Amino acid sequence: MRVEIISVGDELQRGEINNTNSTYAAQKLNELGMKIVFQTTVGDDQEKIVGSIRLAKSRADLILVCGGLGPTEDDKTLTAVATALAKPIKFSDKWWQTIKNYLQRRKIEIQPNNKKQAQYIGNAIPNETGLALGSWYQDGDQQVLILPGPPSEFRSMLKKQVLPKVLEGEFYSSQKEVMHFLGRPESTLMKDLQPIIHQYPQVQFLSYVKPTNIELRVIGDKNIGKREFTELVAKIQKVEAPYYLGSGEDFDLATKLVETLKKRQLKITGAESLTGGLFQSTICSVPGASTIFNGGFVTYAAEAKAKLLHIDSELINKYGVVSKETASEMASHSKNIMGADIGISFTGVAGPDSLEGHPAGNVWIGLAIGENEVITKELHLAEYLGRQQIRLLAVQYGLQLILQALEK
Amino acid sequence: MRVEIISVGDELQRGEINNTNSTYAAQKLNELGMKIVFQTTVGDDQEKIVGSIRLAKSRADLILVCGGLGPTEDDKTLTAVATALAKPIKFSDKWWQTIKNYLQRRKIEIQPNNKKQAQYIGNAIPNETGLALGSWYQDGDQQVLILPGPPSEFRSMLKKQVLPKVLEGEFYSSQKEVMHFLGRPESTLMKDLQPIIHQYPQVQFLSYVKPTNIELRVIGDKNIGKREFTELVAKIQKVEAPYYLGSGEDFDLATKLVETLKKRQLKITGAESLTGGLFQSTICSVPGASTIFNGGFVTYAAEAKAKLLHIDSELINKYGVVSKETASEMASHSKNIMGADIGISFTGVAGPDSLEGHPAGNVWIGLAIGENEVITKELHLAEYLGRQQIRLLAVQYGLQLILQALEK
Repeated sequence: MRVEIISVGDELQRGEINNTNSTYAAQKLNELGMKIVFQTTVGDDQEKIVGSIRLAKSRADLILVCGGLGPTEDDKTLTAVATALAKPIKFSDKWWQTIKNYLQRRKIEIQPNNKKQAQYIGNAIPNETGLALGSWYQDGDQQVLILPGPPSEFRSMLKKQVLPKVLEGEFYSSQKEVMHFLGRPESTLMKDLQPIIHQYPQVQFLSYVKPTNIELRVIGDKNIGKREFTELVAKIQKVEAPYYLGSGEDFDLATKLVETLKKRQLKITGAESLTGGLFQSTICSVPGASTIFNGGFVTYAAEAKAKLLHIDSELINKYGVVSKETASEMASHSKNIMGADIGISFTGVAGPDSLEGHPAGNVWIGLAIGENEVITKELHLAEYLGRQQIRLLAVQYGLQLILQALEK
Repeated sequence: MRVEIISVGDELQRGEINNTNSTYAAQKLNELGMKIVFQTTVGDDQEKIVGSIRLAKSRADLILVCGGLGPTEDDKTLTAVATALAKPIKFSDKWWQTIKNYLQRRKIEIQPNNKKQAQYIGNAIPNETGLALGSWYQDGDQQVLILPGPPSEFRSMLKKQVLPKVLEGEFYSSQKEVMHFLGRPESTLMKDLQPIIHQYPQVQFLSYVKPTNIELRVIGDKNIGKREFTELVAKIQKVEAPYYLGSGEDFDLATKLVETLKKRQLKITGAESLTGGLFQSTICSVPGASTIFNGGFVTYAAEAKAKLLHIDSELINKYGVVSKETASEMASHSKNIMGADIGISFTGVAGPDSLEGHPAGNVWIGLAIGENEVITKELHLAEYLGRQQIRLLAVQYGLQLILQALEK
């Protein structure tokens, strides 16, 4: 099935915003085995939209039109599609009532133009997060879908209304696992998985380098059963066990840690040098972090390590700040001072300059849990990643280290 | 001048990456007064690329083709454009030597396919950051530009080679100021500027809501002189003085603060509650932050405020953590304990839940400078912004508050 995605909007044509809708739809439809043949962007220009739809009708089976469904004069999509298809625009009394109710509740004056948002072509697609209806028009083997442009509405309708309902059966596959890994390069990961990948010709394995980890999207078509797919996922987890973080489209390692600590009623603290508060800030980005985190330390300079954490200056002088020994002391002292169950420390070189003869990317993490011996881990992150990415990855490795230690 | 941007690449068609090149080029060309009529994306498919170029020739004056210039079989752009234009592909011996030298230096084996990257159509555009040549073909009033797809190469060549050289004269204007504001909504800002905007019909005023501030792009065409343009910028700065942060494409408020503190030889520290280390981490994101920052405190829970900052628990009980009084004490105590010149504090409600009866978005910032009386500022950020955005904006307001206080 050949797909053309047409995005409508002057703001896109002027390059004011990235066209994330088109990318999102392309990714989702590609995962369902469809072939995206063209993505076109046009301004709010009736004639150009009509021309684009006609052209798409000559070269695609599914035409997905996005944007230009607002109440203002600028919004010309529906009229243009109706002209190109030579089909009437319909009006939903029921949806108009929904719009009026909504506006009345919000004490917003109802304008005659709001009626435009209750219009559709073919069949209407309801909108759970906005006012404009979507449209689905089917003509033999050819389909035209129209969805509103605000990304929250577009994504929600595509995901909930379009993908499962409109396209189910022939293309739809619910066999998907989005897996996350940390600790080895994408190429090594994929090389390790080759023997498994070769066993499953009916499955797509798409890998992506994300800022905080490697994402692997495993997508089975309808020729693989649910049980077989679950087995496949388990095989991957087993082969990559030391690097596997978790699964899910919105997976977040900090959230996993906060939930684990909540369940086990453990309190955490931290002492951060090169990360400068980024670990603690990441923990606090999770709602409800207050149940597992009271506070901690940012000890950027050596003198702050001595003053706030009471680390012996002689130890720092002897081993340097970028050392196993300093990381250990930072972790255990922060834990003891705060009376927490877990103390984690980060010390190392964010760059661009080297420090104590260590290159940017050289990081030590210390992890003190209860009365156990302090665990340390040394990272050699690539210098070319740059300061921010080195700090970001150090935090992710820290989160991973705690979760792995707690699993033992 | 009508522009069509054609992006080539299977990775774009599959939605694996956002098409940031097209957005970037659209923005830059729009700023020069050109009209982007279509943006088209096609896969690495010879026939479809040829068709797209032919179509573009019928509806655009400038055709910008991006991507598909690599050395592999997948890369078909140049052959496709030559076919569509019925023009020969040329070969640069000189550039081929450059490629060979580069590969030899890096000890990479030279493949016959690398020769493809020394090919071009019309005139060659050199590439400072990669191997593939660009092309510029002019046929009467119509122009076809071909640039490589890796964003660093695409941006650099567009900015340095194409915008000034190829398009200079008729369209090019160097009158641009990218201004940043914080503290009032975009609509209010633009309303205030209306009297000025009306005075300058030869200038575009484009405003954007960015995560950390409002960006205003002021772009003059060649009908405004350099001096007049400078006066215009000064007028805007004057009208919006309390909200103006600074100018520049890559402006960063934390960098401005770090540089200011360096110049004045001042040390800063912080005590963070709702921001959980984000302020300190933002300071540490600037290279060389160690000269102005030794360390500080994350005091998320009330007990950490008492333990680490020695704040009287009775004061917290009396006024609450979301209060002017607590913010003041946090700021001055952190400064005194660390022996810094400046102490800043953040306390408030990140949400989603309310706290002590205060809604999400209610934030107090405390600022202690030397022996001066502590300055406090209360924020009422919109709850709907969400937890992360509230924390991010609180930090930006803190940076602004310090810079404003130091200017006095």
